[in-house]
Amino acid sequence: MEEKQLKLKLKKIANLAKDASFKLNLVDTATKNTVLKEMAEALIREKEKIISANKKDLQAARKNKISEAFIERLTLSDERIQEMSDSLVEVSKLDDPVASIIKSWQRPNGLKISKVRVPIGVILIIYESRPNVTADCIGLCLKSSNCVILRGGSDALNSNKAIFSILNSVALKNGIPQGSINFIDSSERKAVDVLLQLDDLIDVVIPRGGEGLIREVKNKSRIPVIKHYKGICHVYVDSEADLNMAGKIAFNAKVERPGVCNAMETLLVHKDVAIRFLPGMIKELQNAGCEIRGCAVTRKIARNFKNIKSATEKDWSTEYLDLILSVKVVDSLSDAIKHINYYGSHHSDSIITDNRENAERFLKEVDSACVFVNASTRFTDGYQFGMGAEMGISTDKLHARGPMALEELTTYKYIIEGNGQIRE
Amino acid sequence: MEEKQLKLKLKKIANLAKDASFKLNLVDTATKNTVLKEMAEALIREKEKIISANKKDLQAARKNKISEAFIERLTLSDERIQEMSDSLVEVSKLDDPVASIIKSWQRPNGLKISKVRVPIGVILIIYESRPNVTADCIGLCLKSSNCVILRGGSDALNSNKAIFSILNSVALKNGIPQGSINFIDSSERKAVDVLLQLDDLIDVVIPRGGEGLIREVKNKSRIPVIKHYKGICHVYVDSEADLNMAGKIAFNAKVERPGVCNAMETLLVHKDVAIRFLPGMIKELQNAGCEIRGCAVTRKIARNFKNIKSATEKDWSTEYLDLILSVKVVDSLSDAIKHINYYGSHHSDSIITDNRENAERFLKEVDSACVFVNASTRFTDGYQFGMGAEMGISTDKLHARGPMALEELTTYKYIIEGNGQIRE
Repeated sequence: MEEKQLKLKLKKIANLAKDASFKLNLVDTATKNTVLKEMAEALIREKEKIISANKKDLQAARKNKISEAFIERLTLSDERIQEMSDSLVEVSKLDDPVASIIKSWQRPNGLKISKVRVPIGVILIIYESRPNVTADCIGLCLKSSNCVILRGGSDALNSNKAIFSILNSVALKNGIPQGSINFIDSSERKAVDVLLQLDDLIDVVIPRGGEGLIREVKNKSRIPVIKHYKGICHVYVDSEADLNMAGKIAFNAKVERPGVCNAMETLLVHKDVAIRFLPGMIKELQNAGCEIRGCAVTRKIARNFKNIKSATEKDWSTEYLDLILSVKVVDSLSDAIKHINYYGSHHSDSIITDNRENAERFLKEVDSACVFVNASTRFTDGYQFGMGAEMGISTDKLHARGPMALEELTTYKYIIEGNGQIRE
Repeated sequence: MEEKQLKLKLKKIANLAKDASFKLNLVDTATKNTVLKEMAEALIREKEKIISANKKDLQAARKNKISEAFIERLTLSDERIQEMSDSLVEVSKLDDPVASIIKSWQRPNGLKISKVRVPIGVILIIYESRPNVTADCIGLCLKSSNCVILRGGSDALNSNKAIFSILNSVALKNGIPQGSINFIDSSERKAVDVLLQLDDLIDVVIPRGGEGLIREVKNKSRIPVIKHYKGICHVYVDSEADLNMAGKIAFNAKVERPGVCNAMETLLVHKDVAIRFLPGMIKELQNAGCEIRGCAVTRKIARNFKNIKSATEKDWSTEYLDLILSVKVVDSLSDAIKHINYYGSHHSDSIITDNRENAERFLKEVDSACVFVNASTRFTDGYQFGMGAEMGISTDKLHARGPMALEELTTYKYIIEGNGQIRE
């Protein structure tokens, strides 16, 4: 499609979404919940359609010699479709954030002011491979009364399209306004560049995928972007840590699922406990197949171990997303905090300590979205936090920080009720 | 200064501010309040310095043949310095938002989660002429434990510098970390362009000034910008309005202070009451010196009046900031809402009605930061809302919407306390 035509087409879609956002705001909670449950049923009923679309994507991926890990993420099975469906049912059960009153108060002149949650409006979601994101985002945006424009990766085009078309049919059949759920064909490569300029029609962009995608979106966008960058998470074992607990938490934070953003990438250990703690810890991690990259002191303590690589400056700011761990011995709590604030990604960091004062300092001084005492960083997650659903984990400071769920997909307005007040 | 040197210098300032932000976060409320009160005293004690610096700016302004309105805003008198000083005392009395708990809950596995307010970090403020902004921003940022980088207009350079230097001395003398309060000399014209690229050091930009300045900052910035665009505010007189109340409110919203963003720019009147309401209203407004630009129906109703101009399409989206009012007769509440959402600036809009159902519809469907029933739009203001202070009125939807005060200068973090929890 020519660029001019493409621009016109995309602007038309965004315009319709903006118009629909005013109508979607008026749909009541019961209707939204019914639609979500019917969407969940439709996914199961029409799963053959999804599986066969997914097969086309998988064939193309294999033809393009794409990595096995990627193909694994792209693959939809009966079980994964069931999960998508369950997820929609879960969202139907969550509290509707729209119209809830954040606070209200009365002024001496009698004006009654309420701060009320409202939908953001139109949300553009740009995402990579995993097709379940299509269903998750449609569910979360519908429940929070936001119109959504979906732009998935071209590798999952057929799968995404099939899921979108099943869910959108259910929505339209139930009176959800036309234009509430939109899908942009990823075969139009220039579409993202055009969409990111429409800051008068689209209210926020949420890119979901690797750091490269997110940086690209951020650099091109005129629309505010909520960013979900990497997780360089730390566990710090304090001089007054319960070392048994520290070992269990560090092992869990690294090994349970190393490929996710809330997994530990660097272990910091206070010098006073390093000799007692590190040898056992390193042995356990190596037995689990974890590669260790240590600082000079770590390597000295672990000199009887094989294969302890030397950690370089670059290691401290690397998100491995793999069974690799950098280890550093620090002189003090202050040094641990400085290291985390300097090299970390302000995502999730944990201190293991029995000293309340040290815990308080860590909680206050570490500048991260989620700061833990005596628990695994792996708990940074919308479900684990009890939010019921998750749009991702924001590493931004503005609007939404940490796990993003339904409330984070809303903004607020002030409602002011009077009986004739004028300003003197 | 050469561009490369300027870049290095500004990056150094931003780096120091970032470092200072970690220390400023540890300063307690009592210390901050003492500093604010001492700042207030210092402004009065050293007011001759400020007045004489201001004289230099005024001389230059007159030499450059700058408008009287501009010179009026630039001028500092004893009274205005007293107001700046009082304002700092007021901020010292407000609740400290930092470390307040937004909510906290416990998970079934025993994890205790708290959502806690924290400072944003480093705030860049770019502002035009009025030198009192220097003192206001220093006070609000200090109270919310944010480091601030101030970049005022070149017309007020001497005045701003004098105020900054007096207040910063008080801060440093009282142990506020070096680098917490920063002032960028506006004689470096390229400084803004360089600062707006430092998104790894500066957390948010708040431009304060005309729409042109704000758009320029937004277009150039890699840092998130909280925007305070124009206010195209409406009063809608419903078919079931108390017309006496409607007249008083509309008059107040237009005439009390026409040059501000929460003043009314367009009056919408339901067709059923237009003949009864408009003639008296127009007469009253014209007597107050207000120019009227009406739609065809308005002009027909007011055909016996002199000087009713014809409102053009452009009028509906113009912020006059002056004694000019566009008037439109609408067929229905729905048409009023559509007009406001289409032409308005999503700032402040009011319905005058005795019909509760109509009020509810207006409150729900008008997509503005502040939506009023039976009160003047002029109440959109941090002080009038009881927030005690104001950084401006955001027309954005993300992070902060409507009046911005201390809470809006914070973000949050999650604090998670456990006793050894790992994720299974």
